Amino acid sequence: MLNFNYYNPTHIVFGKDRLAELDNLVPKNIKVLILYGGGSVKKFKTLEKVIKSLPGRKIVEFGGIEVNPQYTTLLKAIKIVKNEKIDFLLAVGGGSVMDGTKFISLASHYEGDPKDLLARDFQPVPVKKALPIGTVVTLPATGSEMNSGAVISNDGSKFPVFSPLAFPKFSILDPTLTYTLPAIQVANGIVDTFIHTIEQYVTYPEEGRFQDRTAEGILKTLIEIGKKTIDNPRDYDARANLVWCATNGLNGLIGAGVPQDWTTHMIGHELTAMFGIDHGQTLAILQPSIWTVRKEQKWKKLLQYAQRVWDITKGDEESRIDEAIKKTREFFQELGINTNLGSYGVTHDKIDDIIKALDNQGLTALSETRDLSLEISRKILEDAMDIK
Amino acid sequence: MLNFNYYNPTHIVFGKDRLAELDNLVPKNIKVLILYGGGSVKKFKTLEKVIKSLPGRKIVEFGGIEVNPQYTTLLKAIKIVKNEKIDFLLAVGGGSVMDGTKFISLASHYEGDPKDLLARDFQPVPVKKALPIGTVVTLPATGSEMNSGAVISNDGSKFPVFSPLAFPKFSILDPTLTYTLPAIQVANGIVDTFIHTIEQYVTYPEEGRFQDRTAEGILKTLIEIGKKTIDNPRDYDARANLVWCATNGLNGLIGAGVPQDWTTHMIGHELTAMFGIDHGQTLAILQPSIWTVRKEQKWKKLLQYAQRVWDITKGDEESRIDEAIKKTREFFQELGINTNLGSYGVTHDKIDDIIKALDNQGLTALSETRDLSLEISRKILEDAMDIK
Repeated sequence: MLNFNYYNPTHIVFGKDRLAELDNLVPKNIKVLILYGGGSVKKFKTLEKVIKSLPGRKIVEFGGIEVNPQYTTLLKAIKIVKNEKIDFLLAVGGGSVMDGTKFISLASHYEGDPKDLLARDFQPVPVKKALPIGTVVTLPATGSEMNSGAVISNDGSKFPVFSPLAFPKFSILDPTLTYTLPAIQVANGIVDTFIHTIEQYVTYPEEGRFQDRTAEGILKTLIEIGKKTIDNPRDYDARANLVWCATNGLNGLIGAGVPQDWTTHMIGHELTAMFGIDHGQTLAILQPSIWTVRKEQKWKKLLQYAQRVWDITKGDEESRIDEAIKKTREFFQELGINTNLGSYGVTHDKIDDIIKALDNQGLTALSETRDLSLEISRKILEDAMDIK
Repeated sequence: MLNFNYYNPTHIVFGKDRLAELDNLVPKNIKVLILYGGGSVKKFKTLEKVIKSLPGRKIVEFGGIEVNPQYTTLLKAIKIVKNEKIDFLLAVGGGSVMDGTKFISLASHYEGDPKDLLARDFQPVPVKKALPIGTVVTLPATGSEMNSGAVISNDGSKFPVFSPLAFPKFSILDPTLTYTLPAIQVANGIVDTFIHTIEQYVTYPEEGRFQDRTAEGILKTLIEIGKKTIDNPRDYDARANLVWCATNGLNGLIGAGVPQDWTTHMIGHELTAMFGIDHGQTLAILQPSIWTVRKEQKWKKLLQYAQRVWDITKGDEESRIDEAIKKTREFFQELGINTNLGSYGVTHDKIDDIIKALDNQGLTALSETRDLSLEISRKILEDAMDIK
């Protein structure tokens, strides 16, 4: 097991009918900026209920944080925070709203150009103070509700932003608030959680037995309840298990003390930035092809994944691995996500552009062993294009 | 899944050679009381290394916190804290030292009689401020390094003490610091972790899929590495997995959102108080007999445990459950722990006294369903006495 630090101070408030506790969780007599995305929090009255649970606070609203939150949009919120002397930020939404809120929190106390906080190459941002954040989660997927990271979009690129100050003080996870999500968003959330878990698990063996078993538990749970929670959105227990798995898939727990490989997210971000493909879809497209091309490097963990997650025990090693890759792809497809890159309108001649974009971002040595070159990325994209 | 709150702000610093980080973790220019148990932290120079890692702090020492930390001993430390105006408590040891230190932390800021903080019937203690605590863990077992509870002994009884203020600020978990432990202490630690996990897992089904899988992961890991880490104490990875499982077995993670049954600990505490049987031993004695007597109430989870933890899939349901109970007992025995109550010198005629003690403690309706009466406790003790 590798040495590690684990620290996660977010207070999780999980379950049915927990919104009323906002009154205990948010300080009294302060000015709160509530941040949200599109109209669904209004349409389904989540916003109304949130505001009702915050008597005595001055409430300011900022809507319109888009999927893949844009730097320029967030700048507007930062202006409001400063002008209105906001004391507390409350994100009501999914990963994009939470990520955007984290950036606003960090940038509000940063003296320089907020743009400095992007392109930090995975180093924590140089911020010593941040506005406190709470979240009300309406979409299980990114794990942002219990971690210290965010992904911010600017000029067609995505930038990871980290700071230990970005942990939400609390996150309310009420699975019933997610009942009204469109099926595709739930499917994307399932895939996002699945791949977060994979990226901390299918690397090389490092004797993280607790971490491996916990990762396998998340994967098996998603396989058990994935289709079910899409088909029966009001099945509380299925949805609750998805919500709690999404949080634990990216709160630091399963990645502590083991190697990590964020290749799928890194290449996927480019596909979203260039072609507007949903984040979850990009991951479902790429993961099986990454494994096909990188079978040798991930041999032992792929075998473990085949056996423990999919109960594949027969056949020679390679056929067991191939079967696990096939089953993974089928799982994504059953959730309603097409795993062929071409089906999203991306043509073969675009691969050069994608490789150029990866090069521009410095993503020339990906994976847990830093040997996944642009040439290998090209093979992965070609495989994802050709797959049936 | 049940509604739950999950909050755990302890910063874990895990791995080889992490003691030097104490200098960053403990505030500068303050007065630190270092608390420990017997002579082993001196003999193996852990204490010396700890002090060397704290340059510039005034160090006061308090040794002699016994196994099952005694209220009267802790009162002496509280006096020192007040007289010396201590700013920070650093526990160097196992569960008893950490638990004792938590009590000292809470009592140091309590105006009334510290005895009020015992016998709270699992309610948090009425304390609004506490001294900050750090820990350096030398014995993996209780999980105290990452939770807000303690068990304090007084007048032959054990009292659970809880407060959200009792979370350590940090805990250093260096598996190499545990290499010198006697085999029986490691075995007791493995059993303690195993039973903590069982008590949050073998109850009734409540659709906590992530929690169940994570619990099963801890149990399977302990089965895989238990005997190995006793026989090869310097096998780093085996020991690291034990240490990390011990922490995760009782940091709130696997118990969030699912029923819990602390019967084994409750009856076990009486056996320790009355006969001086090691805490881990009492658990190994009781658990198989509790299951034998309470098979019907725990039927579904025992079947799940048999299948997922022990891979028992053949035979009728009852025979699978019986096989799982047998395998559990054999696992404890392989670790070197006798599971027959009589073998510790407890005779049949003492059962009346144990029942009387449980009655005095108000432990008359135990288990997740609160229907485990004194009469059922008697059956459990009789079964544990008769077992071969």
